[in-house]
Amino acid sequence: MIDFLSDGTVYVHNPHLDGMKDDFLYHFNLGTSTHNLPAMFGDVKFVCVGGSPWRMKSFIEYIAGELSLEDPKAEYPNICAGTDRYAMYKIGPVLSVSHGIGIPSIAIMLHELIKLLYHARCTDVTIVRIGTSGGLGLEPGTVVVTKQSVDATFLPRLEQVILGNTVVRSTDLHQGLAEELLQCSKDLGQFETVIGNTMCTMDFYEGQARLDGAFCSYTEKDKQDYLTKAYESGVRNIEMESSVFAAMCQLSGLKGTPLV
Amino acid sequence: MIDFLSDGTVYVHNPHLDGMKDDFLYHFNLGTSTHNLPAMFGDVKFVCVGGSPWRMKSFIEYIAGELSLEDPKAEYPNICAGTDRYAMYKIGPVLSVSHGIGIPSIAIMLHELIKLLYHARCTDVTIVRIGTSGGLGLEPGTVVVTKQSVDATFLPRLEQVILGNTVVRSTDLHQGLAEELLQCSKDLGQFETVIGNTMCTMDFYEGQARLDGAFCSYTEKDKQDYLTKAYESGVRNIEMESSVFAAMCQLSGLKGTPLV
Repeated sequence: MIDFLSDGTVYVHNPHLDGMKDDFLYHFNLGTSTHNLPAMFGDVKFVCVGGSPWRMKSFIEYIAGELSLEDPKAEYPNICAGTDRYAMYKIGPVLSVSHGIGIPSIAIMLHELIKLLYHARCTDVTIVRIGTSGGLGLEPGTVVVTKQSVDATFLPRLEQVILGNTVVRSTDLHQGLAEELLQCSKDLGQFETVIGNTMCTMDFYEGQARLDGAFCSYTEKDKQDYLTKAYESGVRNIEMESSVFAAMCQLSGLKGTPLV
Repeated sequence: MIDFLSDGTVYVHNPHLDGMKDDFLYHFNLGTSTHNLPAMFGDVKFVCVGGSPWRMKSFIEYIAGELSLEDPKAEYPNICAGTDRYAMYKIGPVLSVSHGIGIPSIAIMLHELIKLLYHARCTDVTIVRIGTSGGLGLEPGTVVVTKQSVDATFLPRLEQVILGNTVVRSTDLHQGLAEELLQCSKDLGQFETVIGNTMCTMDFYEGQARLDGAFCSYTEKDKQDYLTKAYESGVRNIEMESSVFAAMCQLSGLKGTPLV
């Protein structure tokens, strides 16, 4: 479970950063000496992330309408227009950022996002991943609020290799936030929402037991047996980013949940 | 070492594909029942892949000039314009495809690319990854042609989890192609080129011993010791996609090398 740190600060855990004259966030094309990050981002309270740049742009347009902050003539500019690695949009206190596909891609984005929020001196930030996923035993269109992110053996952990050594990080998420989101969905009554575990895999085809990749060495029955075991362990959906999202939220004091 | 299969065919290894009425390549927004893949791609002999969509578009413009196939009025259309997951461009026998960042992202692209080349009945296809990477002990701008892709412990292998079980795949590349590319570079004489091992990591910051991520638990000396060990083992550059690129080229009979 992520503890929303009592002072609400976004934490970096890197003693080297203080000694650096400036910090350039390569993959956002933003930096502390080239941009006034507190002025640009200091009011951010919610960050929504998802794989596709197009979807994150649609999301900011939608949120602008919901917050009555839209300007019918306005184009929402991509704040990271100087790079094609990630796209970023902002309206009021909401930041919307794309992260591409898979753990390595979202991890780079989150390293730089956490540093951005830190440099901008943001406080009390909630982060939600709004992603696509494959459901297990659920009607299509159901939203799963993740309780725990588990790996392909159904364990709540992320293995990372640092200087050649394997480090295991926890992938629990903020339970209070999950319950709050479930309640919001109940109040809205527009779509089915459940809380469950989300399995995070490194591969879309063989890693998620699909039968239609370029390579497949198992049978339809093997696939069904594996997915049944996943379901029995509490998995309700499968995607490719939640474990490192959970681990990095927990390390940085961000109140986060994937909602996929 | 990748054996360029004697009949030159691109192989899928999936008995389920033959029984499928149609095959939709989700992340390319292309399919066997919606597109005439042999007509669109049957003449492809070279595939160049890289992370950034912008770069892969610039590359096809450059190649069009080199092959004297350019049309000054022509825009090179993105063949995957219906999706923002990957971008794809073609001129004559050359296909240029973006793959995003990291092993999971390039793996999805390669599954669908291998199926595309198979459905299009392509033969004798050479694939080259032209990527960005960090050099080790080399002048900036040096090109490294990869001999072997190694993991963060300097071993030539890729671990994949399939149905919850860890499978280890080899990451050797086509040595003949590597030597050929080195010779091309010598003939050109425009930039330094070396053959060496490429380390493929899951993370850009902690995974590559950087000191400027959001989290860093090691010292400058730890970093130097790790990178020295990498160099001594034969590593000349570090990136995030080569291991699965090598493994999938080998499985499918594609003649491939990362050139980064």
